[in-house]
Amino acid sequence: MTLSFTLQAQDGAARAGMLHTAHGDVSTPTFMPVGTAGTVKGMTADAVRATGAGIVLGNTYHLMLRPGAEQVAALGGLHRFMDWPGPILTDSGGFQIMSLAGLRKLDADGVTFRSHIDGSAHRLTPARSMEIQHLLDATITMALDECTPFPATHDQARTSMALSLRWAALCRETFVPRPGYGLFGIVQGSVFADLRQTCSAALTAIGFDGYAVGGLAVGEGQEAMFEVLDHSVHQLPAEKPRYLMGVGTPDDLLGAVERGIDMFDCVIPTRGGRTARAFTSHGVLNLRNAAHAADPAPLDPACPCPACTRHTRAYLHHLFRAGEMLGPMLLTWHNLTYYQSLMRGMRAAVIERRLAAYAAHTRQNWQPRTS
Amino acid sequence: MTLSFTLQAQDGAARAGMLHTAHGDVSTPTFMPVGTAGTVKGMTADAVRATGAGIVLGNTYHLMLRPGAEQVAALGGLHRFMDWPGPILTDSGGFQIMSLAGLRKLDADGVTFRSHIDGSAHRLTPARSMEIQHLLDATITMALDECTPFPATHDQARTSMALSLRWAALCRETFVPRPGYGLFGIVQGSVFADLRQTCSAALTAIGFDGYAVGGLAVGEGQEAMFEVLDHSVHQLPAEKPRYLMGVGTPDDLLGAVERGIDMFDCVIPTRGGRTARAFTSHGVLNLRNAAHAADPAPLDPACPCPACTRHTRAYLHHLFRAGEMLGPMLLTWHNLTYYQSLMRGMRAAVIERRLAAYAAHTRQNWQPRTS
Repeated sequence: MTLSFTLQAQDGAARAGMLHTAHGDVSTPTFMPVGTAGTVKGMTADAVRATGAGIVLGNTYHLMLRPGAEQVAALGGLHRFMDWPGPILTDSGGFQIMSLAGLRKLDADGVTFRSHIDGSAHRLTPARSMEIQHLLDATITMALDECTPFPATHDQARTSMALSLRWAALCRETFVPRPGYGLFGIVQGSVFADLRQTCSAALTAIGFDGYAVGGLAVGEGQEAMFEVLDHSVHQLPAEKPRYLMGVGTPDDLLGAVERGIDMFDCVIPTRGGRTARAFTSHGVLNLRNAAHAADPAPLDPACPCPACTRHTRAYLHHLFRAGEMLGPMLLTWHNLTYYQSLMRGMRAAVIERRLAAYAAHTRQNWQPRTS
Repeated sequence: MTLSFTLQAQDGAARAGMLHTAHGDVSTPTFMPVGTAGTVKGMTADAVRATGAGIVLGNTYHLMLRPGAEQVAALGGLHRFMDWPGPILTDSGGFQIMSLAGLRKLDADGVTFRSHIDGSAHRLTPARSMEIQHLLDATITMALDECTPFPATHDQARTSMALSLRWAALCRETFVPRPGYGLFGIVQGSVFADLRQTCSAALTAIGFDGYAVGGLAVGEGQEAMFEVLDHSVHQLPAEKPRYLMGVGTPDDLLGAVERGIDMFDCVIPTRGGRTARAFTSHGVLNLRNAAHAADPAPLDPACPCPACTRHTRAYLHHLFRAGEMLGPMLLTWHNLTYYQSLMRGMRAAVIERRLAAYAAHTRQNWQPRTS
């Protein structure tokens, strides 16, 4: 019996649910912090847990190159390696090969590329992606796909989507099911409603343990992204979890949950944390700004994280100005805590069927004050 | 009533004691992690506490330039600024001006210099050093001195020491006593026994709440340093704490405690933690070494820190190879934990009058295995 999903409540298209896995349950909607190379940058595993995260993401591309999937397996799997006994989702490797690797060449059977670390040659196929994610011991394995670049013509998007579909079938065949583990398929089709519909139907026919919406957050803009969600999310099986890949800002998360998405991952809160960009219940701040130099107020009075309960904005500003590691550490902690509190807030609102009010109130608080 | 010191036990020249301050008690011998710019690099204040540290050090030079002593005071002092309610010792600023600042010029009344950050002009005098440390709210204030460079002729060392003595008297006059706070004098005199003796006697006549041995760990080598301690530590008042500035390796700490030192500070464990250099009960390791790439063993099985209880040597190696912040974070945590466990071990051994055996056993374990 693979991982399962319980749909607990609905409010319009929005959903609250529970993902049951071999490594524990995760309430949805959920945001997965990105643990690229076996670590959420700047965070101990204890700190990640303290933010309220229930599941983290690992990057197949990074881990297959360093330390290597076989190495991680020999050390007991990614959970033990990074001290995260909870659920882990790994991506397929395809997206990062196309964005990071050198001399990459896509063919009908897979992709050949050179490591961005040492230039060594590698090949990833649907079967090898399944094998790597198995070696990593991923709770949730993602099918290997081609993330269609944006913009794409209808023809380009159709050809690309057809390749992803063929690979999805190969992934389904080679994935080794284990109790409480699962394989997700990925819907492509760019911004074209007919292609998204074809892809969703074909993936559903193959049958996956969850469905991801891929090929978004690649430059199309929030409006186009929401439009795609509006016309395509409802085509996915209601009884399976839905994952919007690589999204997004807090406002993106609100809009996507309102449109029926259950799972997210994004580097925005962690990358922002390293570059002094703070996400708070009162909007976005840049802590390098001189306005914060003497400010004794907490970053976000509503936040329970150490950056907010122990320190002033002036101290956080000082840490970034002085180039101290503790600045990125504390702000990553804060941003992830804020993201998790937003997810918890949306979940509670869905359960109580007041998501519209919660979203309006949250967006209102993000507006700059006019005092 | 300024801070006080209780001498609890002696074993040969070695001592175990308790420092009573406005910000709590500290058992000695004690090692003070260096919190240069209001943060122990790579550590939250909670993590520093978890290593067992009882007192930390702040650098006057760094803090007076950024964010500024008046700024720290306006934010409630360094304790609140960095979330360290325990005791804090600040250095006088003199040592780092001479090693870091630009266009520095020493005269009879103080030192004029340019900030290494923005080139701005500053002046530090004994009175201003006292004022800055007061503004920072330092539990222990250090007198402004000139750290005599090594090597120095007897004449150079005498002239330099005389300047430091005159400044020490000015510091004593301008220091504002508060209950549970204190001012330490600093013995100079390079490696010359007669100068050290003269300086110790003169400082004792002025009267300080503790005495530091300065001008060591500046290139003279461990043997010469221990020789200076052998002939000079006993000249300091037995009822006051003794602080060896800027020292050192674990072996330095063992030897200095054996010679009657109570307090230490050094960047070795923190800087080492950022550069993959691990101090363990079985000696020093470099975690970048390929030998650790597949090693499932903990870094130090005897250590209770997260790096050792949650992770493998292979994982720590991976983090340093991948350039992940978590490598420096975990290894700093480990090194500070090891240093604190060494101090606790020495203290217990002094109390039970078995320091010689403890030191021999500890040094034996540091030797490379011949297996």
